[in-house]
Amino acid sequence: MQFADESHIKDALELSLLPGVGSLTQNRIWKSLADISDIFSMEEKSLESFGIPGEAYPVIRSRSFQAMAAEIYDWGIREGCKFLLRGRPGYPPLLEEIYDPPLILYARGQLEALEKPGIAIVGTRRPTVYGLQMAQGIASDLGNRGICVVSGLARGIDSAAHRGCLDGNGTTIAVLGCGIDIVYPREHRQLTQKILAQGLLLSEFPPGTSPSPQNFPIRNRIISGLGLGTLIVEASEYSGSLITARLAMEQNRDVFALPGNLTSPQSFGPNFLIKQGAKLVQTWRDVVEELPTEIRQEIFLKEDAKPPLKAELDLLTEEESRLLGLLREDETTQFDKIYRYSGLSIPHLSDLLLKLEMAGRIRQLPGNLYVRMRK
Amino acid sequence: MQFADESHIKDALELSLLPGVGSLTQNRIWKSLADISDIFSMEEKSLESFGIPGEAYPVIRSRSFQAMAAEIYDWGIREGCKFLLRGRPGYPPLLEEIYDPPLILYARGQLEALEKPGIAIVGTRRPTVYGLQMAQGIASDLGNRGICVVSGLARGIDSAAHRGCLDGNGTTIAVLGCGIDIVYPREHRQLTQKILAQGLLLSEFPPGTSPSPQNFPIRNRIISGLGLGTLIVEASEYSGSLITARLAMEQNRDVFALPGNLTSPQSFGPNFLIKQGAKLVQTWRDVVEELPTEIRQEIFLKEDAKPPLKAELDLLTEEESRLLGLLREDETTQFDKIYRYSGLSIPHLSDLLLKLEMAGRIRQLPGNLYVRMRK
Repeated sequence: MQFADESHIKDALELSLLPGVGSLTQNRIWKSLADISDIFSMEEKSLESFGIPGEAYPVIRSRSFQAMAAEIYDWGIREGCKFLLRGRPGYPPLLEEIYDPPLILYARGQLEALEKPGIAIVGTRRPTVYGLQMAQGIASDLGNRGICVVSGLARGIDSAAHRGCLDGNGTTIAVLGCGIDIVYPREHRQLTQKILAQGLLLSEFPPGTSPSPQNFPIRNRIISGLGLGTLIVEASEYSGSLITARLAMEQNRDVFALPGNLTSPQSFGPNFLIKQGAKLVQTWRDVVEELPTEIRQEIFLKEDAKPPLKAELDLLTEEESRLLGLLREDETTQFDKIYRYSGLSIPHLSDLLLKLEMAGRIRQLPGNLYVRMRK
Repeated sequence: MQFADESHIKDALELSLLPGVGSLTQNRIWKSLADISDIFSMEEKSLESFGIPGEAYPVIRSRSFQAMAAEIYDWGIREGCKFLLRGRPGYPPLLEEIYDPPLILYARGQLEALEKPGIAIVGTRRPTVYGLQMAQGIASDLGNRGICVVSGLARGIDSAAHRGCLDGNGTTIAVLGCGIDIVYPREHRQLTQKILAQGLLLSEFPPGTSPSPQNFPIRNRIISGLGLGTLIVEASEYSGSLITARLAMEQNRDVFALPGNLTSPQSFGPNFLIKQGAKLVQTWRDVVEELPTEIRQEIFLKEDAKPPLKAELDLLTEEESRLLGLLREDETTQFDKIYRYSGLSIPHLSDLLLKLEMAGRIRQLPGNLYVRMRK
């Protein structure tokens, strides 16, 4: 099944293959023309108005890339690759909102992945063990709660995020910096197979495109663009992940970051982002808390239905409640008096009072006096 | 030299010694009476109106603590201990602003310490090596720039902060949870001597008061109250340092926190505080940036006058500027074209373009096109 008909797809493919016609120009054409195939029969003057460079005119008019587009289309039908067209059903709505969405997306795997709320998790290719474990753990926790983890299939944090999400029985999307027919890096062959079965591979590059370095910063806008937010796990001072974070901000999406020791260069990026306003993430809850109300409530409701793992920190024991009842908000009570009324031993009482103070329920004042705090 | 006359000091000492009369009651009395010595000749009804418990009346009327007050005064004169009285010259103005300032402060060392802008640095008694090094390093950097580091002379982060500040030739204030004549913990004897020479010891507890556990949370309000802000370096989930942070917030002071790995229980507190709005600190600059304009500007001006240690990150090389000149803000330029005009090799050019993208000066768009970003 395709979400657009054959001729539309072929036209879009052909347009996307034209040299010197980048996504901004493609989008300009897409916005102006009801049928993009009109571009192939346009006068030079009209082509010029789209900002298409003169060298491209003969290529467009002679339809030099029509055959290649047809070939790619046939390949897609044969290999089960879907073509997602901007403005057509199946194209991710969040991606439509960004500045320069790709006109066409190549997709392999489970398209349902695009229907779940997505969170991008990205980071350095040279992580620490800490970063790897955290990426994997948080991705697993999020995946397990129905969040789709989006990343870039790169070495390091990216692949840890994909793996973690799959471990948590979640759905994950990998956005590639090469053609969708190419496995890069090679050691991710097995991971790629798992993602095909349990998630989705996406690319805006035509099949056969090699993973050249300049492709990666470009596809980052799709990673952040597919997510409601982006979590940066580890990124050194000049890491490309900071570009992804900046893109997420520009796209008006949430930016999350994992804190780390100042002595770890890999934590420079996340710490810096937090200083700039990114939300510090300690657990998956910190991410879910920022999601749209409906999604957030559904996840937390399901979570609350699970048997509790440990007593809520905020809940007082009966003994603590009784002790709290001995104190007043409007006046202080002497330790001696509390001691006499409580019937507890002094060490035990001191311990309970300290706990209540830590919980912000009471306050000790000079002279061994106690006052209850308004809750 | 004392900042108040003998009789005022003795009256305040006597009032502060009364059992069952905490700092809130003392402050109530202080606010109501032009001369606090009036309290000793007051009728029971008036004493009751201050919230003084009945048991204390005979003690007040018979002036049972007058002799002890005189003894403490004489001891102070002999030992060079100063008495700072609320509302009198020499009492720290920032401390006057808090909810329950101590009526009297015992002070030994260099009173000039109180004239510098103060930052409290606190944390756990059981720090990691990371926490210790950071506390010491940031305290040294701040001390070296004329900031007075305030802490509690406890084991762990507190003493590392004092030491760091002294190492940076700074001035430091230690607020004790015991009498000012007592060295606690004992192993801080040498540190105490250094602070006396290069800083100040403060306590609200009468000489001879032993360091009982309940004193420490109480004196925390003075640590945060003396600072323009409080930096929490390491604190586990139930650490008393979180109380200090809460006090700083209640006192309307800045709260700073040092981020750390989620896997370190000692970093739970600071990370949690950052999530709640505390400012993440990577260097001393992050602290100074939040200080009042005058202080901040003075420090940064002095800093700028120092010879630069490394080239500014924001500064472009001549080559980068020239490259930037080849790009436009309003339209994209093909890589090929940049390559031809630049005269650079492809690897070198790609490298420079990536650097400019990382610096946020240009942006690469699909199709190997580049656009210059508005600065």
